[in-house]
Amino acid sequence: MGQPTVSIIMGSDSDLPVMNQAADILGQLGVEYEIDVVSAHRTPEKMFEFASKAHERGIEAIIAGAGGAAHLPGMVAAISPLPVIGVPVKSSNSIDGWDSVLSILQMPGGVPVATVALNGAKNAGILAAQIIAVGDKKVRENIIQYKNVLREQVHEKAKKVQKK
Amino acid sequence: MGQPTVSIIMGSDSDLPVMNQAADILGQLGVEYEIDVVSAHRTPEKMFEFASKAHERGIEAIIAGAGGAAHLPGMVAAISPLPVIGVPVKSSNSIDGWDSVLSILQMPGGVPVATVALNGAKNAGILAAQIIAVGDKKVRENIIQYKNVLREQVHEKAKKVQKK
Amino acid sequence: MGQPTVSIIMGSDSDLPVMNQAADILGQLGVEYEIDVVSAHRTPEKMFEFASKAHERGIEAIIAGAGGAAHLPGMVAAISPLPVIGVPVKSSNSIDGWDSVLSILQMPGGVPVATVALNGAKNAGILAAQIIAVGDKKVRENIIQYKNVLREQVHEKAKKVQKK
Amino acid sequence: MGQPTVSIIMGSDSDLPVMNQAADILGQLGVEYEIDVVSAHRTPEKMFEFASKAHERGIEAIIAGAGGAAHLPGMVAAISPLPVIGVPVKSSNSIDGWDSVLSILQMPGGVPVATVALNGAKNAGILAAQIIAVGDKKVRENIIQYKNVLREQVHEKAKKVQKK
Amino acid sequence: MGQPTVSIIMGSDSDLPVMNQAADILGQLGVEYEIDVVSAHRTPEKMFEFASKAHERGIEAIIAGAGGAAHLPGMVAAISPLPVIGVPVKSSNSIDGWDSVLSILQMPGGVPVATVALNGAKNAGILAAQIIAVGDKKVRENIIQYKNVLREQVHEKAKKVQKK
Amino acid sequence: MGQPTVSIIMGSDSDLPVMNQAADILGQLGVEYEIDVVSAHRTPEKMFEFASKAHERGIEAIIAGAGGAAHLPGMVAAISPLPVIGVPVKSSNSIDGWDSVLSILQMPGGVPVATVALNGAKNAGILAAQIIAVGDKKVRENIIQYKNVLREQVHEKAKKVQKK
Amino acid sequence: MGQPTVSIIMGSDSDLPVMNQAADILGQLGVEYEIDVVSAHRTPEKMFEFASKAHERGIEAIIAGAGGAAHLPGMVAAISPLPVIGVPVKSSNSIDGWDSVLSILQMPGGVPVATVALNGAKNAGILAAQIIAVGDKKVRENIIQYKNVLREQVHEKAKKVQKK
Amino acid sequence: MGQPTVSIIMGSDSDLPVMNQAADILGQLGVEYEIDVVSAHRTPEKMFEFASKAHERGIEAIIAGAGGAAHLPGMVAAISPLPVIGVPVKSSNSIDGWDSVLSILQMPGGVPVATVALNGAKNAGILAAQIIAVGDKKVRENIIQYKNVLREQVHEKAKKVQKK
Repeated sequence: MGQPTVSIIMGSDSDLPVMNQAADILGQLGVEYEIDVVSAHRTPEKMFEFASKAHERGIEAIIAGAGGAAHLPGMVAAISPLPVIGVPVKSSNSIDGWDSVLSILQMPGGVPVATVALNGAKNAGILAAQIIAVGDKKVRENIIQYKNVLREQVHEKAKKVQKK
Repeated sequence: MGQPTVSIIMGSDSDLPVMNQAADILGQLGVEYEIDVVSAHRTPEKMFEFASKAHERGIEAIIAGAGGAAHLPGMVAAISPLPVIGVPVKSSNSIDGWDSVLSILQMPGGVPVATVALNGAKNAGILAAQIIAVGDKKVRENIIQYKNVLREQVHEKAKKVQKK
Repeated sequence: MGQPTVSIIMGSDSDLPVMNQAADILGQLGVEYEIDVVSAHRTPEKMFEFASKAHERGIEAIIAGAGGAAHLPGMVAAISPLPVIGVPVKSSNSIDGWDSVLSILQMPGGVPVATVALNGAKNAGILAAQIIAVGDKKVRENIIQYKNVLREQVHEKAKKVQKK
Repeated sequence: MGQPTVSIIMGSDSDLPVMNQAADILGQLGVEYEIDVVSAHRTPEKMFEFASKAHERGIEAIIAGAGGAAHLPGMVAAISPLPVIGVPVKSSNSIDGWDSVLSILQMPGGVPVATVALNGAKNAGILAAQIIAVGDKKVRENIIQYKNVLREQVHEKAKKVQKK
Repeated sequence: MGQPTVSIIMGSDSDLPVMNQAADILGQLGVEYEIDVVSAHRTPEKMFEFASKAHERGIEAIIAGAGGAAHLPGMVAAISPLPVIGVPVKSSNSIDGWDSVLSILQMPGGVPVATVALNGAKNAGILAAQIIAVGDKKVRENIIQYKNVLREQVHEKAKKVQKK
Repeated sequence: MGQPTVSIIMGSDSDLPVMNQAADILGQLGVEYEIDVVSAHRTPEKMFEFASKAHERGIEAIIAGAGGAAHLPGMVAAISPLPVIGVPVKSSNSIDGWDSVLSILQMPGGVPVATVALNGAKNAGILAAQIIAVGDKKVRENIIQYKNVLREQVHEKAKKVQKK
Repeated sequence: MGQPTVSIIMGSDSDLPVMNQAADILGQLGVEYEIDVVSAHRTPEKMFEFASKAHERGIEAIIAGAGGAAHLPGMVAAISPLPVIGVPVKSSNSIDGWDSVLSILQMPGGVPVATVALNGAKNAGILAAQIIAVGDKKVRENIIQYKNVLREQVHEKAKKVQKK
Repeated sequence: MGQPTVSIIMGSDSDLPVMNQAADILGQLGVEYEIDVVSAHRTPEKMFEFASKAHERGIEAIIAGAGGAAHLPGMVAAISPLPVIGVPVKSSNSIDGWDSVLSILQMPGGVPVATVALNGAKNAGILAAQIIAVGDKKVRENIIQYKNVLREQVHEKAKKVQKK
């Protein structure tokens, strides 16, 4: 395994079933990644350390998932110069997911977070691959190929529906 | 002026018209305070420094106001052992204030923020005074007196409405 | 057991599974508490009596949980000079919890309720301990220690995630 | 003027422009009323006194208007055996009126509040008249007549729109 | 059984489990009622007939329950001079109940519906009894007695919670 | 002017500025229409009469606009066999338009209303023309031509933006 | 089976259980239809081809169902001159269905989508039949007959409720 | 001016005041861009052409802004292999911006859109620069410098607030 270019972090290990979908698709698209638990609220020093050093370690994009009043993506974006992708996770006491969506999406001017759908870790992985592809055309080819596969899968399913 | 026991901070100087209401009522209730701009997103180091040191400087309660994806109250609460009161501020591109309300209110287990109403800085000030009063019974007397004044004001207004 | 300094009340005994989390954490943090059912809607006289006397009995902070059109925290805050922490409880016919959240949070100027997350009774307990700590530095030490434990737990979990 | 049978109360004199619409329509429908400011949060004793005595004074229905975390209608309904009509008022720092609507509407089983539309004080007045009409058939005649007038007004307006 | 004074109608027989709670409490409070299915959308003629005749048959208050785009309470209120209590029912394809709540609550000026909480049929029954009580003081006594029972039940439950 | 095939109705003459946009576009697309005020709540008999007769008078599609708890489109759809297009109108005391949107959209199975965007009367007109075009191919040609014009207008505007 | 006049499409085969309800009712009402999977996001070329050719193949109305950020109905409406009926489908990671409802309903001026209730495919089928009926009076007779059946079913159910 | 690497498109020229903020910050950060109006709903062919060719012309990231039922970002993301940043624009008949936010954010698995805050075009520009920086380290230096400027501006403003 080579040097990871994407870092996947999450606020709690309970986010892992969702966030693993980012890891899976990155693997499929040929992008190296690392994965860790970093809590803005419970390990603020680790978060600070992580965010200020990631770009010096060769990381090119960060995926951060969190639920409820989700501050991890925004705080990492505040500190790191890298593009940060935020995944709102629907946690147990969430108010229907609105809390994590709005806590990640509505960042103030100057500090963007690239937000994906509620529990949309798969799309966060694809987006990270699209970003890596800016510097690695082989990954772009993988993405184009992936879109072709998606299309073919739908064509297959359509045939079954038409038959009914 | 004595040693401040309450610290009022806000994410942007545009929050000042709202947050000054906390300062005003603290003044009326006889509680010393300090006031500053600390942005979780634009000055994360200052925020970190502020939150980790406040309780060593004699501060007993923190009022933090912020709008949009408001991370300041929650991040200060993550770092400081002091009670943190969060004021959701309705900023210009807010989605009706829901973003700041949910970003401040829906903190995960272990890291509370005492949230007040949208733009409710006045109530944040009263709440801070109620907290200070745990160690200073003169402030509690001021609060009891303040409640009496509130009641009398309503009785005065009621008389005018009854006359109509 | 010594004299309780925190009073935990709830609008219905069906709120007990949630509200017990406040009791548990107060116990861990070394704060004495009492617990009772007080309904603003079904026992208004008891609520009135409770709220007007609590501060005379040595109570320093009140935690009040309620669901639906939750009036208990706000009514107690109207009557008592003590800091009141409100816990919105997601009850059975609630509209996704929005009713209890807004009924507790959006108090008018002059009468604050320190609102925590939906079902956030654990955080209400920590907040009450932070308030008691203003007059009892041993409790503050316990809170600082508790934050250290939280951090260590995350570091342990992070190691497991990294290994995968 | 005879003995009032409907009592119109409101949490703040700032609710008067809205609540006067209840008074106006009651006047038109031939129902005697009284009007007062009673704040659940700032004058809880007066509220308690009002609610426990109203039915002994000949009042048959209560209209209560309030904004934000509106507790007045529900608290009066908790204490009084009379039918209570709640008017959610859209106040200045309201979250689009949702707070007052849900604080009044979502009452627990056993304690109803007859809720009308946001700022719907006119309808509260008509509803109070419909309730009074249970014991006073002359008022019912006035209501039937009022519905006829409403219908005729629409027919007049329809003619103008058809002509265009 | 005597002449019913309250009519309970619902848009669909699937609303019956909820609406039966109105019938039960009316029975307890000593108020005669009738119960029927009347759909504004599927039996508009029956609805029209029902609403225009109810007050001529001795009915004094109508309880109407419906889900989704709930038009039954409002249409009956448009036609009948009687007080109409609307019960928003959370039906299967409802958007969290918001649709039925808003379709019933937000009536235009001139045509009130006394709206209760989502699935709040029990409260609709109590409210109807409070309305009938305007002309029948024995029912008011039953309501006062009912409130006493509610209070005692809470006191019993409180004792159990205190013991823990 | 020939026989109208589309009927535009609205619950109040205050809806006219919005609903006129349906009339304007129908005129442009060569479809004859009539326009009237019909209130489900204030003129229920007229509404009933209108809805049960429209298809016998040669009307092929109905556009119905209303605000708040908007029952007009759904009630007309309950009675008439014709396709009914509902326009949610954002009226003055609306809760941000959600009330009219949900009251029109969330119709129960069996009684559809073709709902367009909030204040979307222009689109209601186009939709009515598309429905008329099922039986009148000249109108379909007009619609195809209209789409071409829309496209050209965007191309013109794009040129100006590109130049900047 | 004759030439289909209604085309039912959906963004994913997981929408089939909902969308089959449109097919069923069209069958009952005597309208020929076709059914297919067409994804705006995964098969954009097929969507483009479908939408630009449907009216040339004898299709007179299109029913398009999709969930989440549902773009299929609006994109087909952008390209085709035919009336397009949109069915918001409540998919697994939806935010309570609001995403698909708003993505389909809130189309800009010039490009209408006739939106039905969340998961309201049955109503989409009825609406399509009402549109086909503009050119086929036999279908209108079927719709009138269908409304009669609905009414009778309610009368049957009402009898059972009355008996209780 | 060199070859643009970022393409800024918007659904309507009325989005230009918002979308120009993306252009301004890209200019400040030293990234070349192009700007155009491309409507998914009114110029679908142009949109298709644009999206399928952008990556062949040297574009590395696309910023797409749209309001209401905003389909432009998602449709471009469906067709192009490039990272697409979506800007929800609060347009005139929007339901408080929720429609554009959800239409852009809630994309299905396989087709990500990097969504920023409502009207957050400035952040879209910064995010695009962060993406370009993956292949151009001079742009990353500019971003690091920009963050320093943000921090200094807050420190300046904080001094003024402290003085008061």
